[in-house]
Amino acid sequence: MTIIPLHSYATGRWIGPAGNISTLRSAVTGEAVAEIGGGGLDYAGMAEHARRTGGPALRAMTFHQRAAMLKALAQYLNERRDPLYELSYETGATKADSMIDIDGGIGTLFVYASKGKRELPDDTIYVDGALEQLSRGGNFLGQHVATSLQGVAVHINAFNFPVWGMLEKLAPTLLAGVPAIVKPASATAWLTEAAFRMMIESGLLPEGAVQLIAGPTGDLLDRLGWQDVVSFTGSAATAGMLRANPHLIRNSVRFIAEQDSLNASILGPDASPGTPEFDAFVKEVHREMTAKAGQKCTAMRRLIVPAAHRDAVIEAVADRLAKTVIGNPRDEATRMGALASLAQRDDVREKVEAIAREARLVHGDPRKVDVSAADAEKGAFISPLLFACDDPDSAEGIHAVEAFGPVSTVMGYRDIAHAAALANRGGGSLVASVFTRDPAVARQVVEVAGAFHGRLYFANRDTGKEATGHGSPLPHMVHGGPGRAGGGEEMGGIRGVMHYMQRTAIQASPDLMTGITGGWVAGAKTLEKDRHPFRMRFPDLEIGHTLWTKSRQVTLEDIEHFAEFTGDTFYAHMDEEAAKANPLFPGRVAHGYLILSFAAGLFVDPAPGPVLANYGLDNLRFMKPVSPGDSLKVRLTAKTKTRRNDEYGEVRWDVAVVNQDGEQVAGYELLTMNAM
Amino acid sequence: MTIIPLHSYATGRWIGPAGNISTLRSAVTGEAVAEIGGGGLDYAGMAEHARRTGGPALRAMTFHQRAAMLKALAQYLNERRDPLYELSYETGATKADSMIDIDGGIGTLFVYASKGKRELPDDTIYVDGALEQLSRGGNFLGQHVATSLQGVAVHINAFNFPVWGMLEKLAPTLLAGVPAIVKPASATAWLTEAAFRMMIESGLLPEGAVQLIAGPTGDLLDRLGWQDVVSFTGSAATAGMLRANPHLIRNSVRFIAEQDSLNASILGPDASPGTPEFDAFVKEVHREMTAKAGQKCTAMRRLIVPAAHRDAVIEAVADRLAKTVIGNPRDEATRMGALASLAQRDDVREKVEAIAREARLVHGDPRKVDVSAADAEKGAFISPLLFACDDPDSAEGIHAVEAFGPVSTVMGYRDIAHAAALANRGGGSLVASVFTRDPAVARQVVEVAGAFHGRLYFANRDTGKEATGHGSPLPHMVHGGPGRAGGGEEMGGIRGVMHYMQRTAIQASPDLMTGITGGWVAGAKTLEKDRHPFRMRFPDLEIGHTLWTKSRQVTLEDIEHFAEFTGDTFYAHMDEEAAKANPLFPGRVAHGYLILSFAAGLFVDPAPGPVLANYGLDNLRFMKPVSPGDSLKVRLTAKTKTRRNDEYGEVRWDVAVVNQDGEQVAGYELLTMNAM
Repeated sequence: MTIIPLHSYATGRWIGPAGNISTLRSAVTGEAVAEIGGGGLDYAGMAEHARRTGGPALRAMTFHQRAAMLKALAQYLNERRDPLYELSYETGATKADSMIDIDGGIGTLFVYASKGKRELPDDTIYVDGALEQLSRGGNFLGQHVATSLQGVAVHINAFNFPVWGMLEKLAPTLLAGVPAIVKPASATAWLTEAAFRMMIESGLLPEGAVQLIAGPTGDLLDRLGWQDVVSFTGSAATAGMLRANPHLIRNSVRFIAEQDSLNASILGPDASPGTPEFDAFVKEVHREMTAKAGQKCTAMRRLIVPAAHRDAVIEAVADRLAKTVIGNPRDEATRMGALASLAQRDDVREKVEAIAREARLVHGDPRKVDVSAADAEKGAFISPLLFACDDPDSAEGIHAVEAFGPVSTVMGYRDIAHAAALANRGGGSLVASVFTRDPAVARQVVEVAGAFHGRLYFANRDTGKEATGHGSPLPHMVHGGPGRAGGGEEMGGIRGVMHYMQRTAIQASPDLMTGITGGWVAGAKTLEKDRHPFRMRFPDLEIGHTLWTKSRQVTLEDIEHFAEFTGDTFYAHMDEEAAKANPLFPGRVAHGYLILSFAAGLFVDPAPGPVLANYGLDNLRFMKPVSPGDSLKVRLTAKTKTRRNDEYGEVRWDVAVVNQDGEQVAGYELLTMNAM
Repeated sequence: MTIIPLHSYATGRWIGPAGNISTLRSAVTGEAVAEIGGGGLDYAGMAEHARRTGGPALRAMTFHQRAAMLKALAQYLNERRDPLYELSYETGATKADSMIDIDGGIGTLFVYASKGKRELPDDTIYVDGALEQLSRGGNFLGQHVATSLQGVAVHINAFNFPVWGMLEKLAPTLLAGVPAIVKPASATAWLTEAAFRMMIESGLLPEGAVQLIAGPTGDLLDRLGWQDVVSFTGSAATAGMLRANPHLIRNSVRFIAEQDSLNASILGPDASPGTPEFDAFVKEVHREMTAKAGQKCTAMRRLIVPAAHRDAVIEAVADRLAKTVIGNPRDEATRMGALASLAQRDDVREKVEAIAREARLVHGDPRKVDVSAADAEKGAFISPLLFACDDPDSAEGIHAVEAFGPVSTVMGYRDIAHAAALANRGGGSLVASVFTRDPAVARQVVEVAGAFHGRLYFANRDTGKEATGHGSPLPHMVHGGPGRAGGGEEMGGIRGVMHYMQRTAIQASPDLMTGITGGWVAGAKTLEKDRHPFRMRFPDLEIGHTLWTKSRQVTLEDIEHFAEFTGDTFYAHMDEEAAKANPLFPGRVAHGYLILSFAAGLFVDPAPGPVLANYGLDNLRFMKPVSPGDSLKVRLTAKTKTRRNDEYGEVRWDVAVVNQDGEQVAGYELLTMNAM
């Protein structure tokens, strides 16, 4: 096998290994796979390149354009997975492991592309939260918005997911319009470099949007300012060291940390042996222990089970572990591959000693493992190790020492409060799971343990095969946790994009607010034109274009007729005396749906035109009763426009229905699809 | 005047000054006002008292109960303002200044009480963001929730707003269910202590919810863990020192900093002399320089004006400053009082020297001031100081040195891009303002400068008297800013509450999700009963209670009749050929409002009962066209309940309209008011 010289990609150029070069070795055979350099890059120049070239290019694109870019990138990588799988085997990963890493990473790009298109505007400014009325007169409004940070994101990734680790950080960063410098962990950097190289070769990203450091980060962190972000995944020790960097502290540089944690899984009190929940738990424990050979920051380290069922759990898990084929990940029979390196195996063996002081080994041997189709000594193989702890309340190490491999400890609990307290002993975790079908148990765990865990995962017979797995962070949900887990958050849908944007509170008049956000707000200027706004094609429709309809009287006959026709004979419409007794009505009143229907009758433009359909309605509130004899008229104003494809876009209309005294009786937002 | 011995309130007891006692002096007369102790409290005991006694008591209350507590507290303090005004004079504050501090602080409690009731549930778990569909089958859902941190909040406050500074942090903290230890700045601690004492005397807060440290914090920070929060307001230097505390770093303790910044105000290119915007700018500059004698972290330090109008601005501002009566704040004629202490005046004089190296003094004298009804030497009086800088591009100090007093520097700009670039030179600020009526200018400033400022304030003739002021943080809006401003956020409505809660990603089956959040979600169990759910009084209605209606056919006659009756003769309902040409419809279809109206006719229960009114509707989507001959039936399920008062509560219903093939044609949430 040729040894791959790992290249950095800095200021638009590929730079091969230089300085103090190290050899990276296969986790399976111990043979040299790649060489990585020892620094010497122009780190300050890289940061400036990102800020001066990558940032402006990304910020010139709208969220939708960036989302389309992510989608194209995902498609490009998706067609080129095979060479990545090949390289991945040498990290010790089985094909199933590689799919978590490679397909999972590409999937994250797809989800962010989709969320960017659906949940973000086709604009560069994000409108965050609701409009705030800051004055009685309505001439001074508040609105939070978010804009792209004008710096660079530095992503420092862990060795266990060389592709997913890069892509799950890049997706929200690029969607935010911020360039990134990616620094993978050396141990598996050949795989990251290969995937990164594809991204550059795709030509889909603007120059300066991404750069790669194969090797150490040099003085990069000391070159960062307060528009920059550091996002770190790795050990608590390294995170603490980086976080204490005086330059970062002095400059209020955003620092997001995702550290390993002592994740727990609780077998519910209802999940006794023989139940589907028990079986699902055992299966999931086995999967969590053996996938990526247990090298997952989300892996189950502590198994908290009803004391009465502890032996049954041990037996069932040990039984499955005993049947697990460990060996060469290229071999199809193999279910668990190798750790990422021999150094990693030494580390696991050392940590296991601390656990063994408080718990009995009930399956496996840290020094001995049967290996299939590989050399157990040359590869970083280790046996799955299951421990049992008899006194989890007084134990310390099992709640604090993480052996980053296929290692887990079973302990018994008395009741669910005790189980949650044990889970919380981990001092803050990325995820805890509960196998239960009892909603009361679920609620209690959230109340007692919510503040201690970034994610709580509940599985049972109902979630079945749809459950995505205790250990799988999803792009939709926050990944991160308090305390030992680092106190950071990643992903969580659009929340993860906001980590690379600055929130700003805007206070302004309605006209300026409309100018800033691009969405019409009540009180802003309206454009009344000769043409009905429904006659405007999507591109020609102006925000603020307004129609005031004629007025129509609502008679008692209308109300009675509507009641008879629809079957809605609620007493408030039909019985004067009963209606008067209702605290909200002055007497018989018109149906809310009658008001809506008459309003549509007033503003609809019957002939075929650019408005294809009214597909929805939001935030309808009836503000004042409409009595027989009242007259209604309607203001319809184009509020926001969102292009969907080459054929049509969505228009949101602000609608006010007013009575003969000019009082608003109903307000809502109408949604239409408009042709281009 | 008796000297007030300032007491700490620790573990339920008042503890007078001890240790190395200091004397605090009137800013106006220099006379001793109070004595403050030098430490010696049981800091670890205080933290434990908060965690063991205050936290559980607060967490046992729902958000609505905590909101009611804040409202009662605000009312209690509101009736006792007079003695606080008296004490406030000695800090150098005029009555107008005191109202910003005291009334502003109480107002913040009121706003949080109101937001807590309107925007948070009557529960202890907050549902954050939208439900996520994590699987195709709908049996595995994602939802973020937030629960109270189980630690203590340590609030370290600045000297300039002794009451507001305490209350703006306490309001979101207590609403979050988290106890606090308040540490005011010594210089004005007598006022904080008096307001704090009222809170304890009110008996409205549970034991352990609040404690006070009059004096230094001792080893308190070294006693904090990762469920605790430090929220700091003050200088960048102190913030940097605290932030670097190795114990805080090692334990991932949340640290929120709000530091002073070099806030800018831009006079828009359209705001030439003679316009209302020019006049509003001059008036606001004067107010910002003189209110609290310029001791506001949000005060305007840099005035960025069109180069052509620079002299006109200087003249107009200097003219107003010259007419400002400076002196004894108790005197009604006084418009500007004293700085908080002689030490503060020394600091301002020193900082002004740095500014004077790059800018000319155009109004005032740092060593000389005419003072009314007070002794200029004994009190901490200083003249307002206006500077003009000719070369703001090459200047450094005016963008970096903050004189925390009535000091501001005028500089000219060429175009709005230049103006925004100058504003951004401050390296991150709490607020920048723009006086303009041009929406394009506003949009450009947000694009170029948004990432550099926590708040952007736009004022003009339209906002007029409704504008709340450049320098006034509002509880609705985020207060904080990036970079030099500390990188933190406070308030911002419910966002500020979240700083004291932990977000957790929940993944679960529909039934468990309903159990956890208390709100019915699609796919969860429904309760079908003999009784129509509209016949249930609010307390008796169970979440999940469901009605399946009979079905009703929609005929072509119905559609034509509805069109004629309402006037909605849109071609898709009336003209088979034209409807078929529409890409969305198979031919003539029923009106969306006909579907809604027939649905209501199917589920409404006509006789008087607990449902008083349908007051609104949310998230209506039409999913599938309804053709003549189709039949509709409706599922109506109680989704959430929110008690509003002793008479009634609000119920949100999940409604699905399905056709004869069981396909959903429309879905929405219906809102009703239900009697108790």
